[in-house]
Amino acid sequence: MPTSHHTVHVPLGDRAYDILIGKRLLDEAGVILAERFARARIGIVTDENVARAQLPRLLASLRQSGFQPVEIVLSPGESTKSYAHLERTIEALLEARLERGDLVVALGGGVIGDLAGFAASVTRRGMKLVQIPTSLLAQVDSSVGGKTAINSPHGKNLIGAFHQPSLVLADQSTLDTLDERQFAAGYAEVVKYGLIDDEKFYFWLEEHREEIFAGGAARAEAIARSCAAKARFVVADETETGDRALLNLGHTFAHALEKLTGYSDRLLHGEAVSIGMVLAHRFSARLGHAPSQDTGRIENHLRQAGLPTRLTDVPGDIGDTDALLEAIGQDKKVRRGALTFILTRGIGRAFIEHDVDRDTVWQFLERMRTR
Amino acid sequence: MPTSHHTVHVPLGDRAYDILIGKRLLDEAGVILAERFARARIGIVTDENVARAQLPRLLASLRQSGFQPVEIVLSPGESTKSYAHLERTIEALLEARLERGDLVVALGGGVIGDLAGFAASVTRRGMKLVQIPTSLLAQVDSSVGGKTAINSPHGKNLIGAFHQPSLVLADQSTLDTLDERQFAAGYAEVVKYGLIDDEKFYFWLEEHREEIFAGGAARAEAIARSCAAKARFVVADETETGDRALLNLGHTFAHALEKLTGYSDRLLHGEAVSIGMVLAHRFSARLGHAPSQDTGRIENHLRQAGLPTRLTDVPGDIGDTDALLEAIGQDKKVRRGALTFILTRGIGRAFIEHDVDRDTVWQFLERMRTR
Repeated sequence: MPTSHHTVHVPLGDRAYDILIGKRLLDEAGVILAERFARARIGIVTDENVARAQLPRLLASLRQSGFQPVEIVLSPGESTKSYAHLERTIEALLEARLERGDLVVALGGGVIGDLAGFAASVTRRGMKLVQIPTSLLAQVDSSVGGKTAINSPHGKNLIGAFHQPSLVLADQSTLDTLDERQFAAGYAEVVKYGLIDDEKFYFWLEEHREEIFAGGAARAEAIARSCAAKARFVVADETETGDRALLNLGHTFAHALEKLTGYSDRLLHGEAVSIGMVLAHRFSARLGHAPSQDTGRIENHLRQAGLPTRLTDVPGDIGDTDALLEAIGQDKKVRRGALTFILTRGIGRAFIEHDVDRDTVWQFLERMRTR
Repeated sequence: MPTSHHTVHVPLGDRAYDILIGKRLLDEAGVILAERFARARIGIVTDENVARAQLPRLLASLRQSGFQPVEIVLSPGESTKSYAHLERTIEALLEARLERGDLVVALGGGVIGDLAGFAASVTRRGMKLVQIPTSLLAQVDSSVGGKTAINSPHGKNLIGAFHQPSLVLADQSTLDTLDERQFAAGYAEVVKYGLIDDEKFYFWLEEHREEIFAGGAARAEAIARSCAAKARFVVADETETGDRALLNLGHTFAHALEKLTGYSDRLLHGEAVSIGMVLAHRFSARLGHAPSQDTGRIENHLRQAGLPTRLTDVPGDIGDTDALLEAIGQDKKVRRGALTFILTRGIGRAFIEHDVDRDTVWQFLERMRTR
């Protein structure tokens, strides 16, 4: 059967890899992996929900190509990104006697990708990793670029490694089983790429938003352009010592909100990013960096996509302004007490600002809490 | 006060670092770290025994230079290389709000270096690491080269990362509190460097063994030459895809013996390596690769250093030959069921042999068990 997919190549020297984006990649996975990793054995890491929806297709395809994969099925949800689940995953890979050249296949959303990726990076000091992202968020963001992590009681993603995948298979058909809220959360990260440095992409998204949500050609194009954007930043700065930090637009606020809502369904990561991006634009306007009409335009776009955009949109209590600032202070991007933010000069013109004054942030947040 | 030390530079591009070898480095640590890492904060990871013997000197020196280090003191012994201690160390570093550019200082032997190094590598996806090795084994081997790890119930060092230190301070004076058995165990790794590819160094060791054990100039020279040898292999092959594996001479046998003796004081790592090196030479002679008189010469040298050299030297029961082969089969160097060994053509002429036949190994071990 003829196959058809977009390919985005990530040229990272001896860690280079391809991202394939298509509609039947789960069914073609066996053939694709057999071609690229001829004699490898496979450990699939997934969660119960994804196992129900997608695992049978992947298993059938792999077995048809002669693989006999081991399955490691974890509970769904952010709380799976824990020390305990990391240990369980690593021990299962060792128990199966998988070796350095063998494959850890991460089948699932961002949680599974982050956890399985981290497990692959430290088991036998580094196994090969294949990401098969099944949520929009994972397809356009977390499966690409090699960041892996688990969470600490002190904050999200505070323990992890940079470990590039050897291949990413983004099968759009897995998005059809996603509910609208999850899809919208992933869409926030798509919008982010436009906001950072590509106003043309941003305007294109405004025009094609409905088509992207409905599926079809614009959806595939949005995913491919997002992966290409992510890949560009990763190649320029693999371990985030410089411009890769731009990908954190909205994320300093977002991580704090996720912490204060207990990394729960109260606020999905993409929803927190949506609020965070609007705050970053409004804060930039307040500081005189950006035109204030951009904030309204972006807020409108995200609202039409069904996303929250304000602190007051967060359901339930998130504590006072001090608690919010304290949560921001534990972000990985903190340096010596001064705060680092991704700010912007307008749509497509984000920049990194170190040494943002804490008081200024406090004043801004205090005002936003009632807005 | 004038200082004096050997410096071995490890030229690993943007991960290059120095190994300083001297007699007062613990007391000079504050000045040295202040020069190289001006505004960094410091978390010291050590164990209770080393804390008692060495921590006061290090703390005094750091405080004199204006540092206010956080101390993380763990229980001594191989069982500290566990998931639980890793978690405890990471959480203590996060609790202290140490950031990416801050320093994890590993003060101790191989266990502390491996654990603290692994914690540094995954906390915030990578903190800076300074190794201050206090055992001979750690000074000549584990503190150099970036291998970090904890143990799994499935075997030793099966979970870890490659994370190069930013600096190594090897203070010989810490070896004076070491008991003779620990020192001898470290000496086995010194001998290893000669056996791999430097017969001149090996013969020099035979001549200077007593002086090295007594302390003095030959000891410093032995440490410096060992570090230089280790560095050479690491630079040639940082992540052990090729010749770095030669450093595992004797280690496939050694890891199996350590596993079967429960990673306990029954058999120290260096003692297992001593037995493993003699077995590797004897096995090589058996296969016709090496002259058999080399085996006797090496065995004699190691025995004079107070080291065990035979399976029958291991105190207590180590199970039958099948158990030994099974334990060898779980080593990281296993590929697809065939066994990889470091073999030799004689002193200073080690080589990597893939696909060693399991039956041949079994026959050899069966014979060695009663020898």
